Amino acid sequence: MLDSLKQQVLKANLLLPEYKMVTFTWGNVSGIDREEGLVVIKPSGVPYEELKAEDLVVVSLEGEVVEGDLRPSSDTATHLELYKAFPDIGGIVHTHSPWATSWAQAARPIPPLGTTHADYYYGEIPCTRVLTEREIASGYELETGKVIIETFTNKGLDPVAMPGVLVSGHAPFAWGKDAMQAVHNAVVLEEVAKMALQTYQLNPDAEPIDQYLLDKHYLRKHGKNAYYGQKATRN
Amino acid sequence: MLDSLKQQVLKANLLLPEYKMVTFTWGNVSGIDREEGLVVIKPSGVPYEELKAEDLVVVSLEGEVVEGDLRPSSDTATHLELYKAFPDIGGIVHTHSPWATSWAQAARPIPPLGTTHADYYYGEIPCTRVLTEREIASGYELETGKVIIETFTNKGLDPVAMPGVLVSGHAPFAWGKDAMQAVHNAVVLEEVAKMALQTYQLNPDAEPIDQYLLDKHYLRKHGKNAYYGQKATRN
Amino acid sequence: MLDSLKQQVLKANLLLPEYKMVTFTWGNVSGIDREEGLVVIKPSGVPYEELKAEDLVVVSLEGEVVEGDLRPSSDTATHLELYKAFPDIGGIVHTHSPWATSWAQAARPIPPLGTTHADYYYGEIPCTRVLTEREIASGYELETGKVIIETFTNKGLDPVAMPGVLVSGHAPFAWGKDAMQAVHNAVVLEEVAKMALQTYQLNPDAEPIDQYLLDKHYLRKHGKNAYYGQKATRN
Amino acid sequence: MLDSLKQQVLKANLLLPEYKMVTFTWGNVSGIDREEGLVVIKPSGVPYEELKAEDLVVVSLEGEVVEGDLRPSSDTATHLELYKAFPDIGGIVHTHSPWATSWAQAARPIPPLGTTHADYYYGEIPCTRVLTEREIASGYELETGKVIIETFTNKGLDPVAMPGVLVSGHAPFAWGKDAMQAVHNAVVLEEVAKMALQTYQLNPDAEPIDQYLLDKHYLRKHGKNAYYGQKATRN
Repeated sequence: MLDSLKQQVLKANLLLPEYKMVTFTWGNVSGIDREEGLVVIKPSGVPYEELKAEDLVVVSLEGEVVEGDLRPSSDTATHLELYKAFPDIGGIVHTHSPWATSWAQAARPIPPLGTTHADYYYGEIPCTRVLTEREIASGYELETGKVIIETFTNKGLDPVAMPGVLVSGHAPFAWGKDAMQAVHNAVVLEEVAKMALQTYQLNPDAEPIDQYLLDKHYLRKHGKNAYYGQKATRN
Repeated sequence: MLDSLKQQVLKANLLLPEYKMVTFTWGNVSGIDREEGLVVIKPSGVPYEELKAEDLVVVSLEGEVVEGDLRPSSDTATHLELYKAFPDIGGIVHTHSPWATSWAQAARPIPPLGTTHADYYYGEIPCTRVLTEREIASGYELETGKVIIETFTNKGLDPVAMPGVLVSGHAPFAWGKDAMQAVHNAVVLEEVAKMALQTYQLNPDAEPIDQYLLDKHYLRKHGKNAYYGQKATRN
Repeated sequence: MLDSLKQQVLKANLLLPEYKMVTFTWGNVSGIDREEGLVVIKPSGVPYEELKAEDLVVVSLEGEVVEGDLRPSSDTATHLELYKAFPDIGGIVHTHSPWATSWAQAARPIPPLGTTHADYYYGEIPCTRVLTEREIASGYELETGKVIIETFTNKGLDPVAMPGVLVSGHAPFAWGKDAMQAVHNAVVLEEVAKMALQTYQLNPDAEPIDQYLLDKHYLRKHGKNAYYGQKATRN
Repeated sequence: MLDSLKQQVLKANLLLPEYKMVTFTWGNVSGIDREEGLVVIKPSGVPYEELKAEDLVVVSLEGEVVEGDLRPSSDTATHLELYKAFPDIGGIVHTHSPWATSWAQAARPIPPLGTTHADYYYGEIPCTRVLTEREIASGYELETGKVIIETFTNKGLDPVAMPGVLVSGHAPFAWGKDAMQAVHNAVVLEEVAKMALQTYQLNPDAEPIDQYLLDKHYLRKHGKNAYYGQKATRN
């Protein structure tokens, strides 16, 4: 079942080592079939070089394994929570990519310091609060999803225009309309995180770019007036 | 038409991923045929691994597409403005290469801290001012070209001896006598930007090299008394 | 003799250049056969690209060469001392991997700043004191082992839950249940060292993660209640 | 003539791109035949991927081209000056490798902060003073050699135990008993420069290692009591 989705989720997972986004088995990508309400996700702890489409696990939005012989990613509950709260996203990726993870460990959101950021992330990339002891004890991965959603709710953020987040003390999650775009956005986040750190090393008082420059870059790539690429809907 | 120029512009574009200057489709290279007054430029948003000579777009200096089925780079207006203002350059490259982009985001020019810099850039590599809201609204890419030219005019810079610039809050542009040399200079800019950042980490009070050392290195590689390489005109 | 162990130790040594953990011949991996009381270790100064299983040296826990035509690693005495003091470890690796070595040179332990750290190292990764002149003169490599053991004793650390250490002014050692896991832990240490340095650059006052988050991550990967991977015992 | 030396110098030059020590044609390696008093050196500005043994230039210690159709490296006069002053060295390499060059640009010597440094460089790696305008005008490359020699004389340094130097505002030179060892030492210098910068980022007050640890590491690899590697003379 879901063969085409599995192929895409496999391909998206294999992009992680290709783009040097993961060490060992760290990281996982999922994709959702919204009509069926089913999610395809990487199995836990399987090396990327051995990963095959048939190893992918199909789970329901309630977390029940519907197909697959292997355990799903230990972060599955986080993915499911995000799919339920963010109806317009179709793929999610979690990595410990080093630059973005350093920002998460520093518990700092990433301000939009340049147009590379503005091309993909429409504003400051948020960082969640720290989870409480009770939350960690009661259901760690589920609560990780909830604190991401809380962050977006509190800040009034649109997950389509802000396709990623830093989880405090942990690492980034990114997403997109499908699994491939989720990985694309995760790679951008890593690149943006690297340049933002270097920018502050050169100028500790560096300011975010002006709102109208942010608007210009984001909107030339996204939305009905986009003119980057070969079709208005590209990217 | 312009087959030989297209081959060179294709080759120059493909050097960008080879030298790790770009992520995804970021970046673009163009070259100009000064006799015909026509520019060959990368199409917008096309992955480098799929790029072919016939995908390149031919545009007039007024921005009219003369040949090609694809949209030209969204930065085409910037390229054209530079070709019109700087008659001695034959190729232009734009990237978001991370070290140079970090300087652009920090809105800092790069002083000549060593001879690597002096071998290619004859003085401090300038950083433009920020664009105003009006400029961005009226024609962003055109105004990006204009602010680069303004920077060179105000500082009395010769674009042949200073073959690159940082656009504040955005990223670098570099150029040269042709598309290949433009990419060469962009790679040098990235390397120089990296070493300048590291130099300031080691010594926040590092001073630019003396003018006579700058002269010595630039002029042993450039101009009629050059003695680097196998011919006086070699870069 | 010990053919299977030699194959594993060879494979583990060859992972060092593959993961870019070594320059030239720097670094060495060993593995122990606890029943025989024999250790298989890399010969000193042999390039990895020429290394063969038959080049590996078999030494007793007393340091006697039992088999092999080449000199064992100059760090052999350190390995042996650790095997004797830490009965639950089966493989040891020493590298000068640059990020971890920078921490060792700075003589700073690495606090657990995020969950990547917590997934493998159950607390702050310690840094030894500096060796005295007398210790260095009397038997440098042996004393290096002793100061590691002293560090673990003084801090009450379990070498299974803390599978690595920084030797002050020198570089890291890491270990595991076998040679392969030792290299795995060394790679993690390097990644953690890199992200911790970057975290402090972003936030000099960054705090270690909460103990309950440390517990959660370490224990979902290790021990009888682990649920990461495909088997409870998987690392 | 000097076929065997040419083969070695070619091989040593080709190691520079392999170890990522050079961008474009930057850098050059030479080797000397002490009996003949002749030096084999890379031609100026020739790309490494095109370099062949027959392209190498043979020059006398007085700088006369004895064989070869191409111009020798523009830095030839520096090499010759060092060969004349340091009779025990047989190969020299110059690069703009980025970490070492950053120290040269910062005009800071590199203190021995760890045993990696001590394994190859017996003390602080010196940085020359800046050249005067008169020196640059009178014979830049020759004076570069002279200021290196002056630095070694003033500090009482032995070029065998200190096989490299930073030229202020410029970049490193390294050397060794032959061209291959010179490149080896240049790679070590780059690695040491990287780790020293990172060490100071972690601990701005980091101290050099104790003299007895420096002695221990240098002397276990060098001199008559060396015990690293398979032969006492192995480096």
